[in-house]
Amino acid sequence: MALIVQKYGGTSVANVDRIKEVATRVKRFRDEGHELVVVLSAMSGETNRLTSLAHSIHANPDPREMDMLLTTGEQTTIALLALALKNIGCDALSFTGGQVQILTDNAHGKARILNIEGKRMREQLHRGKVVVVAGFQGVDELGNITTLGRGGSDTTAVALAAALNADECQIYTDVDGVYTTDPRIVAEARRLDRITFEEMLEMASLGSKVLQIRSVEFAGKYKVPLRVLSSFTEGEGTLITYEEESKVEQALISGIAFNRDEAKVTVRGVSDQPGIASQLLGPIGDANIEVDMIVQNVSIDGTTDLTFTIHRNDYNRVITILQEIATRMGAGDVIGDNKIVKVSLVGVGMRSHAGIASKMFRVLADEGINIRMISTSEIKISVVVDEKYLELAVRALHTAFELDEGVNLS
Amino acid sequence: MALIVQKYGGTSVANVDRIKEVATRVKRFRDEGHELVVVLSAMSGETNRLTSLAHSIHANPDPREMDMLLTTGEQTTIALLALALKNIGCDALSFTGGQVQILTDNAHGKARILNIEGKRMREQLHRGKVVVVAGFQGVDELGNITTLGRGGSDTTAVALAAALNADECQIYTDVDGVYTTDPRIVAEARRLDRITFEEMLEMASLGSKVLQIRSVEFAGKYKVPLRVLSSFTEGEGTLITYEEESKVEQALISGIAFNRDEAKVTVRGVSDQPGIASQLLGPIGDANIEVDMIVQNVSIDGTTDLTFTIHRNDYNRVITILQEIATRMGAGDVIGDNKIVKVSLVGVGMRSHAGIASKMFRVLADEGINIRMISTSEIKISVVVDEKYLELAVRALHTAFELDEGVNLS
Repeated sequence: MALIVQKYGGTSVANVDRIKEVATRVKRFRDEGHELVVVLSAMSGETNRLTSLAHSIHANPDPREMDMLLTTGEQTTIALLALALKNIGCDALSFTGGQVQILTDNAHGKARILNIEGKRMREQLHRGKVVVVAGFQGVDELGNITTLGRGGSDTTAVALAAALNADECQIYTDVDGVYTTDPRIVAEARRLDRITFEEMLEMASLGSKVLQIRSVEFAGKYKVPLRVLSSFTEGEGTLITYEEESKVEQALISGIAFNRDEAKVTVRGVSDQPGIASQLLGPIGDANIEVDMIVQNVSIDGTTDLTFTIHRNDYNRVITILQEIATRMGAGDVIGDNKIVKVSLVGVGMRSHAGIASKMFRVLADEGINIRMISTSEIKISVVVDEKYLELAVRALHTAFELDEGVNLS
Repeated sequence: MALIVQKYGGTSVANVDRIKEVATRVKRFRDEGHELVVVLSAMSGETNRLTSLAHSIHANPDPREMDMLLTTGEQTTIALLALALKNIGCDALSFTGGQVQILTDNAHGKARILNIEGKRMREQLHRGKVVVVAGFQGVDELGNITTLGRGGSDTTAVALAAALNADECQIYTDVDGVYTTDPRIVAEARRLDRITFEEMLEMASLGSKVLQIRSVEFAGKYKVPLRVLSSFTEGEGTLITYEEESKVEQALISGIAFNRDEAKVTVRGVSDQPGIASQLLGPIGDANIEVDMIVQNVSIDGTTDLTFTIHRNDYNRVITILQEIATRMGAGDVIGDNKIVKVSLVGVGMRSHAGIASKMFRVLADEGINIRMISTSEIKISVVVDEKYLELAVRALHTAFELDEGVNLS
C-alpha cells in the first residue's frame, strides 16, 4: 500500500464523461489498497473563458481579483470529481487550496508555496477517503486567494506529495510519457522509462513541454518520485527520479530537445573590456526580454563579437535597442538572423563520457548542416542551426545516438 | 455619510454589461460619500447550470460537494464586479463568505449564520474601498464551504448589515418595490413607500415573493432598515422598517396577498376529543407536507369537521393518507377541493381598527363570491375562495380598501 498523489490536467477533466473516467481510474488505485490524493486543473478552456470575461471588463485586470476569478475553475472540477467518486462507491472529499492550507506568498498570479499543512489531508486519508484538492491555488497569510500561475497544478501536486511524503506523484496528461524527442518529427522516438530530474529540466526548458519546469525543480528539490503518464491510455509512463546510477549504465543520451522560434543577434567590434556584456544585455533585460545562449568570441585587436539568442518575437525590439547602444558605445554593426533553431543533446551520461560533442558535430557535418553557435553544460550540448535543417538534424542525431525505437541499448 | 449594504440578484449581474451597470450605480453612491458593502448572487442561470452538471454525475449529490460547486457562481461575480469598479476608478476588493468569516452551522445547502466578524470589512471600508462579498455562502467551524439555500444572498446582505450596524440594507431586484398587490392582476396596484417587517412577512409568505422570508425575519430581528428597489430603473423603492407609528396613521391595509395552487381537505365526523388534530395532522407532517390554514368547526353531537389547506401538488397524497387514518379512527368521509385560492388582507392598521373583516366579507359578498374558509391573525385576514374568483376578489378588495393608484390616503 502506497500513498500516491495524482494530478489530472484540463483535458483529462474537460467534461462530465472525462471526469467519470478519472473517477474510475482513481477508484482502481484505491481498490488496490493505495491512499490517494488527487489534484485537478480546471476544465480545459475554462481558464481562458474566465480570462476573456475579465478582459471584457478591464484591460489590465487586478491580479488579486483575477485569482479570485480563476480559482473557481478548479473548485468546480474538484466538487464534480468528488461526486463522481461517491457515485461509484469511492468515498471522497474535495478541498480548495486554502482548505488544506497551501500557504503562499502574496504574489498574485505567480505565487510561491511557502508551506502546506498536511494534517487535514492525513486525517481524511486515514478514514479511507480519497482527498481531492484544487490545483493551481493557495492562500496568503491574510487568507487572500492566490494562484501559482499557468501549469501551477503540477506544482501543487508535487508540493502535496512532498508535504505528505508520498511514495509517488503521478502527473496525468495527454501524452503517455517523456520521449527521446518529439514523435511528430522523429517517428522512431521512444518513450523513456526513466529520466533524471536534471535531464528533465533540460528537456523541459528546451521545449519538450510535458511538465512545467517549476514542478520538476520542486520534485528534484524534495526528491519526490515523479511519473508522467497518460490519462487516456494505459501504460507505465516515464518515471523521473533523483537516482541516476542505473541510468548511467544504460545510455549516454536521454533525448534530443529543440527550440523553434529562436533568433540570434550579434554586436560586432565591441571593445573587449570588463562590463561590456552587461552594458549590452542590461537594457535587454530591462525590457523584459529573455536571453538564452550567450557566446563571446576571442578578442582580435582588442575588440570582440558578442552573440546571443532570443525568442523570435522579440527580434525587432532587440535589434532596435542594440543599435542605439552600439552607436553610443562606438561598437560595430548589429547583425542578426531570425530563421534559426536550437537543437540539444541531453543526458547525464555525458558527465562520464568524452567524445559526445565531437560525435554530435560530425553527425551534423555529415548531413551538410552548418553549426552557427555552440553552447555546452554538464549534461547538455546545444547547437544553433538554420531553421530549414531542424528535422534533419534531430533525426540524424536521434539515429546516431541509438535512440530509435527498437534499438537495443544494453 | 452612511454605511450602506447593497445586494444585487442574479438578473442584475446576468452578464458583463449588467455588471458594469451595477458598478456605475455603486460608484454613484460612493461618490456621494457613502461607505459601500455590495453582496452579489451568481449570474442568473449559473446555479441551475452547475446543478445540472452535478446531477449528470450523481442522482443525489452530496450536499457538501454541492456547496463547494455552487459557491463558485458568486465567487465569479464578485471578482468581475471588483474589476468593473476598479475600471471606473472606484477601488474595490472582493471577498468570499469565508474570507469575511461568515460562520455558519454545517447544514450544507441550508446553513444558518452563527456569526460574522466585521473587522476585515471595516478595515477596507476605512481605507475607502468598496467591499464586494459573495452572497449565499459561508464556512463552518472546520472551514467547509456552506450555502444558505436559495435566496440566501438576501440573508447574507441583511446579516452583514446587522454585523456592521449599517444604516440601510438595499436589496436590488427586477421589481421596483413592494406593491399593494400583484400589478399583473390589478393594473392600479401601487408601490408602497414603506411597510413594516411584520406586514412584509405576511406579504412574502403569502406569495408576494419580492424578498426571501428568512432575510426579512433576520432584518426584523436585528432592526436593519431594509429597502427593496430595482436595479434597472431609478426610484426610492420600498423601505421595510421596524417603526410603524407613522404608518398606522396612513392606511389600514398595506396590501393584498394571494396564493394560487392551494387545495383544501376536510375530514368529517371526527370525534371531538383531545389529540384528534395531531393524530390527523401528524402523518401529514411526517410526509413532509406543509399545512397552511387549519379550521375546526364547532362540535355537533360530539363530532366535528377538520379542514386545512395544503399546496395543490400534495393534494392526492394527502387524500390517500387521510382516508387511511379516517378509516382507522372511525371518522367520516374525507372530502376536498383542489380548485381554491387564498386571498389575504395585510396591514398593521388592523390592530387598532375594528370592522375590517366585516367590510372584507361584505365586499366579497357584493361580488357574489362565496367564502369557503376564514382565518385571521393580528395583522392579516385570509379567506379561501374558488379559484375562478381570484382576480375579481383581489380587484374588488384593492379598490374597496383604497389601495388603487391615484387614491389620496391622507
